Amino acid sequence: MMKKLAAELVGTFWLVLGGCGSAVLAAGFPELGIGFLGVALAFGLTVVTGAYAFGPISGGHFNPAVSLGLAIGGRFEWSELVPYWIAQVIGGFLAALILYVIASGQPEWVPGGFASNGYGANSPGGYGLVSGFVTETVLTAVFVIVILGATAPKAAAGFGGLAIGLTLTLIHLVSIPVTNTSVNPARSTAVAFFAETGAVSQLWLFWVAPLIGAAIGAILWKALLADE
Amino acid sequence: MMKKLAAELVGTFWLVLGGCGSAVLAAGFPELGIGFLGVALAFGLTVVTGAYAFGPISGGHFNPAVSLGLAIGGRFEWSELVPYWIAQVIGGFLAALILYVIASGQPEWVPGGFASNGYGANSPGGYGLVSGFVTETVLTAVFVIVILGATAPKAAAGFGGLAIGLTLTLIHLVSIPVTNTSVNPARSTAVAFFAETGAVSQLWLFWVAPLIGAAIGAILWKALLADE
Amino acid sequence: MMKKLAAELVGTFWLVLGGCGSAVLAAGFPELGIGFLGVALAFGLTVVTGAYAFGPISGGHFNPAVSLGLAIGGRFEWSELVPYWIAQVIGGFLAALILYVIASGQPEWVPGGFASNGYGANSPGGYGLVSGFVTETVLTAVFVIVILGATAPKAAAGFGGLAIGLTLTLIHLVSIPVTNTSVNPARSTAVAFFAETGAVSQLWLFWVAPLIGAAIGAILWKALLADE
Amino acid sequence: MMKKLAAELVGTFWLVLGGCGSAVLAAGFPELGIGFLGVALAFGLTVVTGAYAFGPISGGHFNPAVSLGLAIGGRFEWSELVPYWIAQVIGGFLAALILYVIASGQPEWVPGGFASNGYGANSPGGYGLVSGFVTETVLTAVFVIVILGATAPKAAAGFGGLAIGLTLTLIHLVSIPVTNTSVNPARSTAVAFFAETGAVSQLWLFWVAPLIGAAIGAILWKALLADE
Repeated sequence: MMKKLAAELVGTFWLVLGGCGSAVLAAGFPELGIGFLGVALAFGLTVVTGAYAFGPISGGHFNPAVSLGLAIGGRFEWSELVPYWIAQVIGGFLAALILYVIASGQPEWVPGGFASNGYGANSPGGYGLVSGFVTETVLTAVFVIVILGATAPKAAAGFGGLAIGLTLTLIHLVSIPVTNTSVNPARSTAVAFFAETGAVSQLWLFWVAPLIGAAIGAILWKALLADE
Repeated sequence: MMKKLAAELVGTFWLVLGGCGSAVLAAGFPELGIGFLGVALAFGLTVVTGAYAFGPISGGHFNPAVSLGLAIGGRFEWSELVPYWIAQVIGGFLAALILYVIASGQPEWVPGGFASNGYGANSPGGYGLVSGFVTETVLTAVFVIVILGATAPKAAAGFGGLAIGLTLTLIHLVSIPVTNTSVNPARSTAVAFFAETGAVSQLWLFWVAPLIGAAIGAILWKALLADE
Repeated sequence: MMKKLAAELVGTFWLVLGGCGSAVLAAGFPELGIGFLGVALAFGLTVVTGAYAFGPISGGHFNPAVSLGLAIGGRFEWSELVPYWIAQVIGGFLAALILYVIASGQPEWVPGGFASNGYGANSPGGYGLVSGFVTETVLTAVFVIVILGATAPKAAAGFGGLAIGLTLTLIHLVSIPVTNTSVNPARSTAVAFFAETGAVSQLWLFWVAPLIGAAIGAILWKALLADE
Repeated sequence: MMKKLAAELVGTFWLVLGGCGSAVLAAGFPELGIGFLGVALAFGLTVVTGAYAFGPISGGHFNPAVSLGLAIGGRFEWSELVPYWIAQVIGGFLAALILYVIASGQPEWVPGGFASNGYGANSPGGYGLVSGFVTETVLTAVFVIVILGATAPKAAAGFGGLAIGLTLTLIHLVSIPVTNTSVNPARSTAVAFFAETGAVSQLWLFWVAPLIGAAIGAILWKALLADE
């Protein structure tokens, strides 16, 4: 069990350092910056790489909503849910801390949004609460459905990590303008406390919507698609 | 059979939400937008991820032209063709509906083309009808040939989903400027009714050309390349 | 044998249509264009997808230099070399023809360089003949070494197509500014006759350098690395 | 043993030619340049492609820090460490030499930073020494952990090369603005002597930090995650 929690902690550390790190440090670099496309790729690659490195140890969730969805889907022990959540939040927070240290080494740097998630004034494109809620719920639902499908007994062996990580890239390609993309409460929590934009006051949405979405996804999977 | 249709519905939902969603929400975002490259990647990843998640259930078509091509190629039952088409169109339409709800949460947003396909005035680069017809026909033909090849008995097991999805990315890298890229009548139909640009009046092309292309591709495959 | 030649013809058609097509139609689209990065990805994906679709039939060369390198490396019959070259050149030329039809459907379009390869005034970055020769020779040599390595008996089964196609993406990421990247005489020949920039007079380089590079790569592989 | 050293030499040659080559030649090309995103992709693809081509021969390190981490992790013979380091540095240097020849074929070209690594005035974003040190140490540590995880006995067979190469892409997506990204002393050494910016005087950091990071990663892996 300690190995599993260590894997989730390190994996979520990697997700936040890689994903939020690319957003804070590289997205808006003048002329040569990686933009939303690079950030989308970075988030996806944290999961692709983490899945192959840590998946055999812990299952490679790195995300409280995914852990919930897998528990509802019957692929994960309910008794391990809260320990996983704690490891994920700690791992993400440690990454945000190190990212803060690195970023503050640039003269005149200010945290600003610090890659936090938000709606309304904190949405990159100014999208409101309803858009944010629908986006996070629907995308997390599909995320969980894809995870359950790509790791089902009949799925092509070995390709799950690639499919799941690239799903996260795809989710970011769609939704960074709306909420800066969470679908992961641990990722949202990790950076919210460093932001100067009041992201903490909107953090509830990035727990509620992904968890509801994950539940919906798992239930739809079992009702309509599962063949186990 | 219901599981198959559910898989096609959800998969085509995902294709339209991910592909058209990235185009509507993120492609033209000021400075940081993902551009045509990001949209091309998004469309391809909907199929890569959908293929691994839903392929074992329904075959993972998500596209009426692909279903037709596979039927002609002898890999799909003719009796299932129309039910698949209906599931694909419904799934795509539901995605467009949700995308409309999300997008309209941005103040002063207007649908505009809403990621619809077109030629002439509705072509991103102003390409005429002949260019559009040739593009959609030829690219769908090669798409179907690649699908038939990458899922043939001698093909490397497991890599089909990756090859097929990345083919869709490649098709978009070439042809977004010409027709905004369809090669998929369900994708075109899903968004046409939300566009303010008269896309519905051009929708016939994005059924006719992909279906003709798919037939040509399947026939060429059987005549020249198949070894089954 | 006819199936092999058909596969090489269709595969090289796909390489030129996808790679040069993305360059001609989409690279420089205002604001949303895919740039050199998108073109690099497109060329690589033509080979990734072609390798999985046509590799089991013909070996998936799509490139006279690759065919030569594999012959020297002992992986391909010398007697098939010239027929393969002919099929590759024809396939590429047909793609350039269709691309020309599509591109000319844009009002006021002119062919310009038409994605041809060149040095000096025809190099995108104005690089001279020596740079072009070194670039094409060295990159083709490494390309052939990677191909021989990734398809060796000890290599991971199935991953060859991905590794080889992504090598072509990488080659383009480096060298589009120098020669517009050939490493493939069939690709260079296909578009040279459509260009308005005198590309035909420089075409010799894009046969000589890739073929020399392929020979060097194959010889180095056998001398230093092979374990067969 | 000579085959192993040849594979490391050619592989590191490829890493520097592809990664630094894309940075020097293509990153800042006017309008169409590949930017940091393209460079990040290029570096990752050198390892993806090198791993499948040369991994079966030498293990595919191409990086002194990786060799050290694998030795500490018990996956690599200590007696081979110094020979590997020498082959890696020579291979990288030869690539920088060829890159210099190619790049100098552009009229009025000057080497400038020549893709070298640095901090302070030599950091692309002006990040200081502490940021650079933390960045290189932490990212190399995670790099080694991912390598050890993705090649562990329980890991999905064949996917290691993909996961490890894409980890290098991810590392670059985060850290090019900070240090221009090393995590590889051979890569830093190869280009430092060609730079006009005093990169040699900062080269110590790009040996010390990656080697420390590699050691930390390997030790953390053994203490917390290994199950061998």
